[in-house]
Amino acid sequence: MSRCVIADRIGRMGRWEPNASGRLRAAAMELYLERGYEQTTVADIAQRAGLTARTFFRYFADKREVLFAGATDLQGHLVSALERAPASAPPMAAVAAALYAAGDVLVDREYSRKRQTVITANAELQERELIKLASLSAAFAGALRGRGVPDAEASLAAETGVAVFRVGFERWINGPDERPLAEVMKESLEQLSGLTAVRLSS
Amino acid sequence: MSRCVIADRIGRMGRWEPNASGRLRAAAMELYLERGYEQTTVADIAQRAGLTARTFFRYFADKREVLFAGATDLQGHLVSALERAPASAPPMAAVAAALYAAGDVLVDREYSRKRQTVITANAELQERELIKLASLSAAFAGALRGRGVPDAEASLAAETGVAVFRVGFERWINGPDERPLAEVMKESLEQLSGLTAVRLSS
Repeated sequence: MSRCVIADRIGRMGRWEPNASGRLRAAAMELYLERGYEQTTVADIAQRAGLTARTFFRYFADKREVLFAGATDLQGHLVSALERAPASAPPMAAVAAALYAAGDVLVDREYSRKRQTVITANAELQERELIKLASLSAAFAGALRGRGVPDAEASLAAETGVAVFRVGFERWINGPDERPLAEVMKESLEQLSGLTAVRLSS
Repeated sequence: MSRCVIADRIGRMGRWEPNASGRLRAAAMELYLERGYEQTTVADIAQRAGLTARTFFRYFADKREVLFAGATDLQGHLVSALERAPASAPPMAAVAAALYAAGDVLVDREYSRKRQTVITANAELQERELIKLASLSAAFAGALRGRGVPDAEASLAAETGVAVFRVGFERWINGPDERPLAEVMKESLEQLSGLTAVRLSS
C-alpha cells in the first residue's frame, strides 16, 4: 500500500490531518480579526479550517490557548538560552542571550502583529498575556539563581529583561522595516544601558 | 449646637463614622489573612469594623477594591512627581523621582507586607495587581512623552521604571531592617545601572 493511500485512509478516519494545528491557528486568527475574539467559537474555527471541533480539542484546550500555546514554548526556549550562556557571562549578558534567542522562535512578524491586535482588543487576553510575562520573569530569575546570581540581583535582571522584551517585541512588530527580532532586542538593550547610565539625584 | 452633638447626630443617622475607611481596610486585611480572601464577605468586613455593609459600599465598590483603592492614588502621586522633575532631567532621572516619591505614600511596611501576602495567595488578585502595574507603566510612558521624550525611549524607561518599582517594593517589604522605601528604590536603580553597564555579545 502506498504512503498516499495510507494517509488518505487515516485522513478519512479523522485521526490525522496535514498541519491541523497550523490550519487551526490561521483560521482562528482570521476569525478573531474579522468578527472579534468574543464572537468566535471553537466550532467556527474548526469549520473555517475544514476540520472538526474534535480535532481542535486534540491540539488546544480552548479558543484562548490557540493564542498562548506558543508562549509556553517560547519561554522554554528563552530560559534554555539563558542557561546555556557561558558561566562567565554577567547576569544581564545571560539575559541578553535569552532575548536574542526570541528571534529563533518569533520569525513571522505578520502573525505576531495580528496576534497583538487581537490581544490588545480584549481585556481577558491582556490579563493572560501579563500573566505569561510575569511567569517569564519568574523563570528568568530562577535560571539566574541557578547560575549563582544572588537573589536580589537575579530578580532585578529578570524583571528588567522582561521589560526590554516587551518593548523590543513591540518595536519589532510596529517598526517600519522588517528586521530580525534579535537585532531589535540588542538595540533596546543598548538603549537601556544608555538610559540607566545617568546620575540619579535622590 | 456643638460640633460633637452634630457629629453624634450624623453618626446615628449612619451618614458619618470616624475613620470608617481606615477601619474597613484594617478589618478586611485581618479577615483576608485569618480566613482567606475568597472566604471573606463584605458583610463580614463591615461587621468586624463595627459598621454596616451600606457604609462599606460608600467607600469601596467591592471587597477587592479595599486592596486596590490605594494603588490608584499611588499612581497619581508617582506620575505627578515624574511630571514635576526638572525639565533638564534625563528620562531615567525623571522616572527615579517618581520611584522615590513612592516613599511618601508607602510608609506602613507592615500593611504593605500583609497586602502582598493576601495578593500572592489569590490568582485573581495577582492578575489585578499586574494590570495596575501595566497601567502604571503606560502612565509613566505618557508622562515622559509629555516631557518631549521620544516614543521608543519613553516606553523603555517606563517599563524599566516599573521593573525597578516591583523589585524595590519587594525588597522593601521583605528586607530584614526597616528602611525608607525611597532609599531602597535608589539602591535598586543604582544596581540596575551597574547590571546594564556590561558588554553584551550578540
